[in-house]
Amino acid sequence: MLERPSEAVLDAFAAIVGPAYALRETDTVAPYVTDPRGLFSGRTPLVLRPGSVEEVSRILRLATEMKIAVVPQGGNTGLVGGQHPDAGGTEIVLSLGRLDRIRELDLRSGVVVAEAGIILQRLRDIADAQDKLFPLSLGSQGSCQIGGNLSSNAGGTSVLAYGNARDLCLGLEVVLPTGEVFDDLRKLRKDNTGYDLKNLFIGAEGTLGVITAAVLKLFPKPRGRETIWLGVASPGDALALFEIASATAAGALTGFELMQECVVDFVIKHMHGHRPPLASAAPWHILVEISSGRSADDARGLAEEIVAAGFERGLILDGTIAESLAQTAEFWRMRESMTEAQRPEGASIKHDISVPVADIPRFIEEAARAVASVCPDARVVCFGHMGDGNLHYNATQPAGAFDASFLDLYPVMNKAVHDVVRSLSGSISAEHGIGRMKRQELLETAPPVAINLMRRLKDAVDPAGIMNPGKVV
Amino acid sequence: MLERPSEAVLDAFAAIVGPAYALRETDTVAPYVTDPRGLFSGRTPLVLRPGSVEEVSRILRLATEMKIAVVPQGGNTGLVGGQHPDAGGTEIVLSLGRLDRIRELDLRSGVVVAEAGIILQRLRDIADAQDKLFPLSLGSQGSCQIGGNLSSNAGGTSVLAYGNARDLCLGLEVVLPTGEVFDDLRKLRKDNTGYDLKNLFIGAEGTLGVITAAVLKLFPKPRGRETIWLGVASPGDALALFEIASATAAGALTGFELMQECVVDFVIKHMHGHRPPLASAAPWHILVEISSGRSADDARGLAEEIVAAGFERGLILDGTIAESLAQTAEFWRMRESMTEAQRPEGASIKHDISVPVADIPRFIEEAARAVASVCPDARVVCFGHMGDGNLHYNATQPAGAFDASFLDLYPVMNKAVHDVVRSLSGSISAEHGIGRMKRQELLETAPPVAINLMRRLKDAVDPAGIMNPGKVV
Repeated sequence: MLERPSEAVLDAFAAIVGPAYALRETDTVAPYVTDPRGLFSGRTPLVLRPGSVEEVSRILRLATEMKIAVVPQGGNTGLVGGQHPDAGGTEIVLSLGRLDRIRELDLRSGVVVAEAGIILQRLRDIADAQDKLFPLSLGSQGSCQIGGNLSSNAGGTSVLAYGNARDLCLGLEVVLPTGEVFDDLRKLRKDNTGYDLKNLFIGAEGTLGVITAAVLKLFPKPRGRETIWLGVASPGDALALFEIASATAAGALTGFELMQECVVDFVIKHMHGHRPPLASAAPWHILVEISSGRSADDARGLAEEIVAAGFERGLILDGTIAESLAQTAEFWRMRESMTEAQRPEGASIKHDISVPVADIPRFIEEAARAVASVCPDARVVCFGHMGDGNLHYNATQPAGAFDASFLDLYPVMNKAVHDVVRSLSGSISAEHGIGRMKRQELLETAPPVAINLMRRLKDAVDPAGIMNPGKVV
Repeated sequence: MLERPSEAVLDAFAAIVGPAYALRETDTVAPYVTDPRGLFSGRTPLVLRPGSVEEVSRILRLATEMKIAVVPQGGNTGLVGGQHPDAGGTEIVLSLGRLDRIRELDLRSGVVVAEAGIILQRLRDIADAQDKLFPLSLGSQGSCQIGGNLSSNAGGTSVLAYGNARDLCLGLEVVLPTGEVFDDLRKLRKDNTGYDLKNLFIGAEGTLGVITAAVLKLFPKPRGRETIWLGVASPGDALALFEIASATAAGALTGFELMQECVVDFVIKHMHGHRPPLASAAPWHILVEISSGRSADDARGLAEEIVAAGFERGLILDGTIAESLAQTAEFWRMRESMTEAQRPEGASIKHDISVPVADIPRFIEEAARAVASVCPDARVVCFGHMGDGNLHYNATQPAGAFDASFLDLYPVMNKAVHDVVRSLSGSISAEHGIGRMKRQELLETAPPVAINLMRRLKDAVDPAGIMNPGKVV
């Protein structure tokens, strides 16, 4: 059993980082115990902001010794409550933001060695300044940190061509619950020397140890980039277009996002300064990104070929290729503001699901029936990374009828939508993780063999159970 | 402690698969207890050839109950003794070859669900017949099995563009040591629901459970393919050419192999029907493969651009682009026969190393000194997947002086070469795994934190220690 830390123990933790980096006052602690959507909050007696791996190591060693729970936190942008202490007020928060050095930039090997606290946008900028691309890209990139991205195996809008955070990482440095440092910061493309420890820590949401640094892959910066906005009649037509785009552009197809018309309308209605991207209405919208490693002309040629083939096959109602960098940026800003744009429409019950790509149309059809069965007037708000089989599928409360009790439907709505996901052998958390939010559902619905395996691994790596308790398993 | 199986226990195992598939005679068992290079051999009282997952499950359940060691085996092509019983004659061999069904071919989702015993070449042919590519490609593809490929995280010649076996797998079915079936045969590109169990079993060399089936990715078949053979003066020039080829072809660069001149000479001298690919001599040879998803013309254009840029920069001594499918096949046959071609030259002490790609020239320079320090007249025989930073680096006994005692130098030669690898933060097993061959060295030289973690995971998943004992950790 874990312990409630005494004042003396809190002082011992604080002494490791020094008084300036040990936060104990309610107001200084506040930003670390609430989440961006306001769904979760917790209490903590202490937020520690270590400035070195050595300090992280000493903190975890003491925590294991004293049986104190530790909750690692990056940029605090997670959406499933994985980065917060519980309400008991006994769990210590370990904020990694001060570990923000670039340890090495090795352009010939195409890697950067980055500490956990580096903000994703900064890493992208550093790569960009060297004419390289670090492809991980998501809405919160201005504040999320690379350690959190790895701990949650972040997805985002560039997974189609470059993979998840997992796929961008060649090596890790992890502080284990005992305080031991597992140093595997290698730059190797191939290494078959024993079990794949790296991938065990990636996506473990801080329940097995604390990622303090990583070797990350850099890619050549595309020489040409085109963004296409299309209107289509149905998810089935969107799938047919995706198949055309994949076959035409292959690895140069770096984005394929599907958006229901209402989400586009919400952006125009509620967010400042956006205009409809298409002249005519369409039930479904698609944002396609082409990135050519060769030239701007090459990217343009591929984009035109895809659009021409789509029109010829009768799959496109309306479409436009962005005519300037400004318009490209505008298209992506619209896509990225969709989460925020639905907020004024009232409460939403959210899902972050994936199914095999070919099953996307079927999922959309069956999930709409599932939503209606729970609340006939609820509005479906659906958008996401169709190319990855991943949709953000939300049920928003009936139009005009603001009623906080809609959120009481959260469990039953989740179950209805997730039952469709499960019937298609899909995932109930494609990219956001399990955290606190989906833990109970995972425990109840995942195969017992899988849960049992995960628990055995957890016990093996963190026998005292101090790492981020109550999350994942 | 594990037990020596009694006759009654052997009978109980045999009854699970039926007498026709339980081999006990010395001559029928022989093919399962020796390896292709003749470096390892073992003894077993019983080879089981189950015909279903259910039978595998019953075998492992009984093995755990009776504390009998089980050694899983695929096509028996592994090079590190991972697939054999030890000399004690108490370990049972579990051969997966009869689990050879294609469970599903889902072209729209771009996946195939294949059982463990399917031979790699057959899987490649099945994909090819559907105008798809299953990219895993290695010398033994005519007899290795996909379960073994996954258990050893096989590499080969297409890793540069498509990744290792690990990267080609979306889901697994694994029978655990308890006999429980972990069914995670999902077709998802994104799934963040708990720990990454899949990657724990991939590359574990059968020490954690038995992979019985997998969901594997299929890719569009390239529409154009070009193969280039080049002669260069040095590994440094080869690296510069690799950078040009990467920048020019990006994802269309699907192969970049480096070969020392002597290995090319061995092929011409010892293998039937090969001719020198270049008119003039060159200390180092390179085989480049370009695969275009667009067209044959596109591939040709990229190949010509790379060759032109290489000549212009003075990096190429001589070069030729294959002029026919027959010549392309001939180039690859030469590359693939290199392991065999060095055999007539006498005994070789072998290494399967990786370093960061940019360190390849430095490795080659320093490793040559290391070899000379152990045996001044030993001949370095070096070839491999340069684009992955992976070389097969062998020390062959002095020319003309056939002397079996050369192999007595194995440990000291390994140490000398691997010390260079370690000084460059490389891997002593880039693609062949650890098995029995490199276990002692791994235990002695890997960071104790890593070994300790692996052992804890092993104990967590296989507490009775029945799975492939004495391998990996």
